[in-house]
Amino acid sequence: MRFWDYFRTSKPSTASMAKERLQIIVAHERGSHAQPDYLPKLQQELLDVISKYVQINRDDVQVQLDRNDSCAVLELNITLPE
Amino acid sequence: MRFWDYFRTSKPSTASMAKERLQIIVAHERGSHAQPDYLPKLQQELLDVISKYVQINRDDVQVQLDRNDSCAVLELNITLPE
Repeated sequence: MRFWDYFRTSKPSTASMAKERLQIIVAHERGSHAQPDYLPKLQQELLDVISKYVQINRDDVQVQLDRNDSCAVLELNITLPE
Repeated sequence: MRFWDYFRTSKPSTASMAKERLQIIVAHERGSHAQPDYLPKLQQELLDVISKYVQINRDDVQVQLDRNDSCAVLELNITLPE
């Protein structure tokens, strides 16, 4: 999957569209040399930063990490408290 | 523009695809009550966190902030040093 196709093919469910939510996507398109795989470590730090501004229940955070040869994508989908 | 349409309609230039790059997107879909506008403040903190893992030249960071009634999207596009 190419870098930008990732965003164009993502589709939410009808149920998830009804609630207030926050999505964070970090996409690293790699060049010819491999990068250290830092995205899993980054996940917790991103949530810590976001938590300064928005109330987040950690149980309402869905994490997805996709990788292929040329691209790594970390996606955090957060349903916010009502 | 609906929340997910943002990702499906984003298209990079051919030139930008050639370099190694990092993209960070924070999308806040608002509910019936308005949220504090924290995305501009968040920008610097996100860059500080990312900088722990990836070398970033601040001159190579493009920032875009889009808002409408129901959604606010912060997008950081970073061209990484070769």
